[in-house]
Amino acid sequence: MTAGAPRLSDRQRTSWLRLIRTDNVGPATFRDLINRFGSADTALELLPELMLSGGAARPSRIPTVAEAEDEIARAAAFGAHFVAIGEADYPSMLRRMDHPPPLLAVKGSTGVFKLPAVSMVGSRNASAAGMSMARRLSSEAGAAGYAVISGLARGIDTAAHQGSLGTGTVAAMAGGLDRPFPPENAALADEIAARGGALVSEMPLGWEPRAKDFPRRNRLIAGLGLGLVVVEAAQRSGSLISARLAGEMGRLVFAVPGSPLDPRAAGANALLKQGAILVTEIADVLDALKPLGGAPVDHVFPVEEPPDFMAAPPPGDDDRTRVIEALSPVPTPIDEVIRHTGLHPSKVFMVLLELDLAGRLERHAGGSVSLIGY
Amino acid sequence: MTAGAPRLSDRQRTSWLRLIRTDNVGPATFRDLINRFGSADTALELLPELMLSGGAARPSRIPTVAEAEDEIARAAAFGAHFVAIGEADYPSMLRRMDHPPPLLAVKGSTGVFKLPAVSMVGSRNASAAGMSMARRLSSEAGAAGYAVISGLARGIDTAAHQGSLGTGTVAAMAGGLDRPFPPENAALADEIAARGGALVSEMPLGWEPRAKDFPRRNRLIAGLGLGLVVVEAAQRSGSLISARLAGEMGRLVFAVPGSPLDPRAAGANALLKQGAILVTEIADVLDALKPLGGAPVDHVFPVEEPPDFMAAPPPGDDDRTRVIEALSPVPTPIDEVIRHTGLHPSKVFMVLLELDLAGRLERHAGGSVSLIGY
Repeated sequence: MTAGAPRLSDRQRTSWLRLIRTDNVGPATFRDLINRFGSADTALELLPELMLSGGAARPSRIPTVAEAEDEIARAAAFGAHFVAIGEADYPSMLRRMDHPPPLLAVKGSTGVFKLPAVSMVGSRNASAAGMSMARRLSSEAGAAGYAVISGLARGIDTAAHQGSLGTGTVAAMAGGLDRPFPPENAALADEIAARGGALVSEMPLGWEPRAKDFPRRNRLIAGLGLGLVVVEAAQRSGSLISARLAGEMGRLVFAVPGSPLDPRAAGANALLKQGAILVTEIADVLDALKPLGGAPVDHVFPVEEPPDFMAAPPPGDDDRTRVIEALSPVPTPIDEVIRHTGLHPSKVFMVLLELDLAGRLERHAGGSVSLIGY
Repeated sequence: MTAGAPRLSDRQRTSWLRLIRTDNVGPATFRDLINRFGSADTALELLPELMLSGGAARPSRIPTVAEAEDEIARAAAFGAHFVAIGEADYPSMLRRMDHPPPLLAVKGSTGVFKLPAVSMVGSRNASAAGMSMARRLSSEAGAAGYAVISGLARGIDTAAHQGSLGTGTVAAMAGGLDRPFPPENAALADEIAARGGALVSEMPLGWEPRAKDFPRRNRLIAGLGLGLVVVEAAQRSGSLISARLAGEMGRLVFAVPGSPLDPRAAGANALLKQGAILVTEIADVLDALKPLGGAPVDHVFPVEEPPDFMAAPPPGDDDRTRVIEALSPVPTPIDEVIRHTGLHPSKVFMVLLELDLAGRLERHAGGSVSLIGY
């Protein structure tokens, strides 16, 4: 750890974990709560009331202090720990995405997060040529001083990790760190952590990854790299979703071309048509990433919790009605909700936060929101 | 032929053929001579004197009227004829290139020149997949109303012609129309001409194509299309030269991607890195070409020979010395030669023309010239 870098106290870390493990509290809501109430502790105290105000039939259960301490202890026993955004060991690239996870479970070496990184994904059902290409690119990226990020899946992901085992590779996982998927990659996961790389996850230990957890993992893969390379990907594959996410985060998107007669190349070729950078050798990637320097400018995030700044008066029931009436199942920019209701922005934010915590609000890219089950 | 379109008289056509068949008279010099002296006849009269003024030990032999008439008669017997620039049957796309051939030998139907056209080239040593791709793209381009231009070579060229036999395909040849290369494509050449397509050449009947004749054919291939598609091409292949020529002429350049592990795709992938448009299906080509309309704006070329306009006094020996001293083996813009010598532009042009006809001048892109054997 860098000397003098901010660090959560054990008590803060426990509170952060309780807060992020509460239903309807995702990274965006977490951040709003900390910004609004100054600390996770205060937010935890007010959560039940906020949820009821937002229209929840009853408040979600908040993990107890004992439960959070137990999760931290089990993680430690497994050889993992939680890194908070703003701490020196947190992957700085993640701060350059919307709504970074406030806490990340890590097993292995956080030193790998200090390297400039490139993400590499592709088909689970890859060809021998695709596997060979991924291993080669990954190995050469590693030799050039880059960490290689991937998702521990079969096929291209596996090849990407294998090629960079000796130089530092990071596997972003959809389930808990002790639940590698597919299970046959358990040995690969162990090796990644043992050889200077890292496994990272937003989910608790023991969490079996479900289909709906993979988009979150894809976000991590895209977020952790300066750029994302798609090696072999069919049309409508998860790799293309990762590529889209990477593009939205301002990451460079690369693709390895293939014959139009090979369906496994269709996704990569489609990306190239959309402006992805064509890769036939690692120099194509490194030449494009080099100007980015590998030293991203960090967003500021208040890991040292700010003083309570609940200055604005809390919203009343009239305010809640006005905000809800301004919303619909169609995403609406928050600015427009403020204009439409004529309410003080802090009141609008507060009502939205309540709705969010009650599971009634969906947040969209670009600061739009919509009502769920309207 | 379009009614009212200009047409050379038989006598003019004979004179044009004599002039273009004279050593050191290429398309650029041909045009300069017509512009300067108003007619091929006048140019032919003055040629010996101009060559001697330019420093030739003795003038090149000019084909006789009988020889030119014989070439025209032999072409007719072979089923071919000569189309002059400016005539309605001349391929209008060729007028949109630097130094179009003033006369083109054609066998087959000139109707195919009225279609919008796409050029397609690639490796002689093509893979089965590449051949299949070329046939498919060519067939679909034909179905969409495009003529397909290629070079009658083995491999991709052959597939491109085959795919578009029924809809109109044009083979640009490096040798005479009766000297298809490779010889095993003689039957394909016959079929192209018989089925509404055309064979075109700048060279006389009976001319066996030499290696040095292929760049000229490549220019025709690039010039005849609105865009050029490279289907499969290794590094440092002739297809890449055609692609460069097409780009220089303002034609769109397309390439079909392939695996970086396949050396036959290296050239096409390299073109894509340089900005060629990626093609996986014919729509990628047609969508890009459609805005070009297929109805190019013709450059004006004085096929109806203008009156003699040798108004400026002819250059003297002093003028010749000054121009030659301003030249070197390094290409120099003609404007700079004019500035440097302080001579009237028409005198400079005239000295350059003499040097050109004497085989002592090389012309470069962008209007630069250099001395040969300096």
